[in-house]
Amino acid sequence: MAGKMVEGNLDILIEGGTLITMGEGDDIIDDPRIGIAGGRIVFVESGLFGTSGTYRAAEIIDARGSIVMPGLINTHTHLPMICFRGMADDLPLMSWLNGHIFPAEARYVNRDMVYAGSLLAMAEMILSGTTTFCDSYFFESSVAHAAMASGMRAVVALGFIDVQVLDSPERSRQLEIAEGFISRWSSRSPLVTPALCCHSPYTCSPETLTAVKGAARKAGVPFVIHLAETKEEIHLLRERYNRTPVGHLKDLVVLDGKTMAVHCNWLDEEDMDIMAGADVKVCHNPESNMKLAAGMAHIPSLLDRGVRVGLGTDGCASNNDLDMFREMGTAARIHKVIEMDPTVMDAATVLRMATLDGARVLGLDDRTGSIEPGKEADIILVDLRKPHLTPVHNCRSQLVYAASGADVATSIIGGKIVMKDRKLLTIDPASAMSEVRKIAAVIAADRIAR
Amino acid sequence: MAGKMVEGNLDILIEGGTLITMGEGDDIIDDPRIGIAGGRIVFVESGLFGTSGTYRAAEIIDARGSIVMPGLINTHTHLPMICFRGMADDLPLMSWLNGHIFPAEARYVNRDMVYAGSLLAMAEMILSGTTTFCDSYFFESSVAHAAMASGMRAVVALGFIDVQVLDSPERSRQLEIAEGFISRWSSRSPLVTPALCCHSPYTCSPETLTAVKGAARKAGVPFVIHLAETKEEIHLLRERYNRTPVGHLKDLVVLDGKTMAVHCNWLDEEDMDIMAGADVKVCHNPESNMKLAAGMAHIPSLLDRGVRVGLGTDGCASNNDLDMFREMGTAARIHKVIEMDPTVMDAATVLRMATLDGARVLGLDDRTGSIEPGKEADIILVDLRKPHLTPVHNCRSQLVYAASGADVATSIIGGKIVMKDRKLLTIDPASAMSEVRKIAAVIAADRIAR
Repeated sequence: MAGKMVEGNLDILIEGGTLITMGEGDDIIDDPRIGIAGGRIVFVESGLFGTSGTYRAAEIIDARGSIVMPGLINTHTHLPMICFRGMADDLPLMSWLNGHIFPAEARYVNRDMVYAGSLLAMAEMILSGTTTFCDSYFFESSVAHAAMASGMRAVVALGFIDVQVLDSPERSRQLEIAEGFISRWSSRSPLVTPALCCHSPYTCSPETLTAVKGAARKAGVPFVIHLAETKEEIHLLRERYNRTPVGHLKDLVVLDGKTMAVHCNWLDEEDMDIMAGADVKVCHNPESNMKLAAGMAHIPSLLDRGVRVGLGTDGCASNNDLDMFREMGTAARIHKVIEMDPTVMDAATVLRMATLDGARVLGLDDRTGSIEPGKEADIILVDLRKPHLTPVHNCRSQLVYAASGADVATSIIGGKIVMKDRKLLTIDPASAMSEVRKIAAVIAADRIAR
Repeated sequence: MAGKMVEGNLDILIEGGTLITMGEGDDIIDDPRIGIAGGRIVFVESGLFGTSGTYRAAEIIDARGSIVMPGLINTHTHLPMICFRGMADDLPLMSWLNGHIFPAEARYVNRDMVYAGSLLAMAEMILSGTTTFCDSYFFESSVAHAAMASGMRAVVALGFIDVQVLDSPERSRQLEIAEGFISRWSSRSPLVTPALCCHSPYTCSPETLTAVKGAARKAGVPFVIHLAETKEEIHLLRERYNRTPVGHLKDLVVLDGKTMAVHCNWLDEEDMDIMAGADVKVCHNPESNMKLAAGMAHIPSLLDRGVRVGLGTDGCASNNDLDMFREMGTAARIHKVIEMDPTVMDAATVLRMATLDGARVLGLDDRTGSIEPGKEADIILVDLRKPHLTPVHNCRSQLVYAASGADVATSIIGGKIVMKDRKLLTIDPASAMSEVRKIAAVIAADRIAR
């Protein structure tokens, strides 16, 4: 972390404020200087004690009054579902899913809807400090294209489900599609990592689970699955296989370090041990779990076992926003009252979940999640000069308990400035909103007509 | 609600957008017109079907693209504690209170600190859509003066506690102070309502509780008390009086329609029946209760019994913000997962808690909490033209699950515009922040020195 002599040209120099690196050791640096060139972080030094090499920067960002920190990582979402935001709330879970979400997906999801929804969702995410996300849905190539347009770092997981939602091709064709998707996106953009997703152990057959995970393993890409989200799922799996969802996936040899298990609200002690033993990654989505009354994962118990846990918002149909700051605040608070212990999920732990551990969950910690020399420059500035962020006794507390997405002023992804002083530079928000309003108007008119 | 012929001059005319009146009947009006004169709402009509009288408005507010709604009502907070925001988080409750908060209060709370903290807190509240609050603390006259300066509607409850925190005068002197406070503030400003507060049944003796409630009853003002916040309180009261906190207050004849019970996390069925029978009002502070791991009130059970419940943020030492939009989002979500029922605390219920029912809890529903002719004009505009608030399938869902305080563009209190397009008109935020930073710097230096 110490400053080192740097000569030559920088693309960006960030100066001033307070840096939270999320790297090793003491990770708070006052009045820092961060040099960025070729998309990467070249040096991180204290402005007070740095050796300040000789360099010229094409752009200097004044971070005085701000916290400089790694961009947030949303480990689980379904971006195109932004089109359904607020369409069906406060309903029983099965009526929400079977009466509203699945039918809407069958009718309205297509390539164009996925692109338009994803682009608007990316505007929302950049405006609230997220720089990397993992999306699971259909037509994921459109999500990947939107990511390239917006400049966001993306893990795009193509979704498989055996329940008839969209016109699903038969299994041999599915595998062909999966392999085609991976090979098409494996080296197309440095921002995009392809992945595969099975919806859940209760909507995917053992054959589908094995085949899709097999394809992911063969290609070395992440595999995403909703796991143990609801009590009903536990009952269903017990009936069908006489196993817990985790036990079932273990039997199918689906659990390993590149499997991301989403939700995990209903794990027993043995399940948690299996997850820890297999190094399965966990995506925690507290706001969605609360709103759908799905249940609540025992995150402190998973952390005690050394399981890597990232945070996610889930899709807009179940949250209803993509603000990772709000998700941090909720994650920090909900477990305290459940465990009746105000010391669990402290601000530092939750910040790590939303940054470096999120990167670890996605297998991207070699390139993002902390501000350290050699990593890609995925950096946000949070402006503290506001009444609700004054005074500052503790930076981490401020971020987790008081800040919201709207406090993010500037965002850099892979060394490219995608938002400056709240102005989006890669997406035209008016046009992105207008496209999604058109889709929503069709949905609304259609729902009234039926 | 129908438009009526109005002639003469208006101070303000609000036109366009979507109005949520929170009044009787169908409370959503598209493309409304709202006339304001002499601080009050003169008419509310649909722009499409209104009879549009003959009038001239000094100021016209264009509400297109916005939701127009009653200003939010924060029924419980300790504004000056904004100076302690982030000072002591993620700690065991008793260490937080006895090791940090009480000592800090003993050292740093004075008239100037209370004024400076309150003014900054009011800046934060106006910026996040709150127009009315109920504060309980020491030196409440300074809070009242800040309310008059900021133009906010305030219930200011002077606090009493027998535990030695500040230099507390003896009881006869306390009563004199209470009565003097009430008479001083009873008719000084139409914005300010005086009230009295006893900290809790475990920090106030039966004599103090009876005397302070007696003074409040005599003057006809609200009486505030933290009640059944923690399990420890239940044990303490059981030990001392062999009663629940509610039973204890019932014995002391402290419970009536002008008593506001704050928190109420540990009520049994009989307690809830007593509260409902006595028409006791409840202030629900879910984020504070979660963060301190205090417990969680069974709000759906209280609502089933017809108890009036308002929302509050509590102070910044335990939240750590004053954003009522976030509080609404949390209130709507937390009870769903606790009850395992996604239909409880729907968006409409939570919105009512944060507006009209908050006014009822404070005894101010004759003048605020809804947008209806005759009421004072306490109105906010929430700008929906943002990625995270697009599309709009359901206005109420959008407000409760996706909006945050930063989306409030304009705020009117008692017919006076206190914020226009995010610019505060009654408070200089830079100066308010600077004053509190100075106080925080003294606290921080002092804490390091000790």
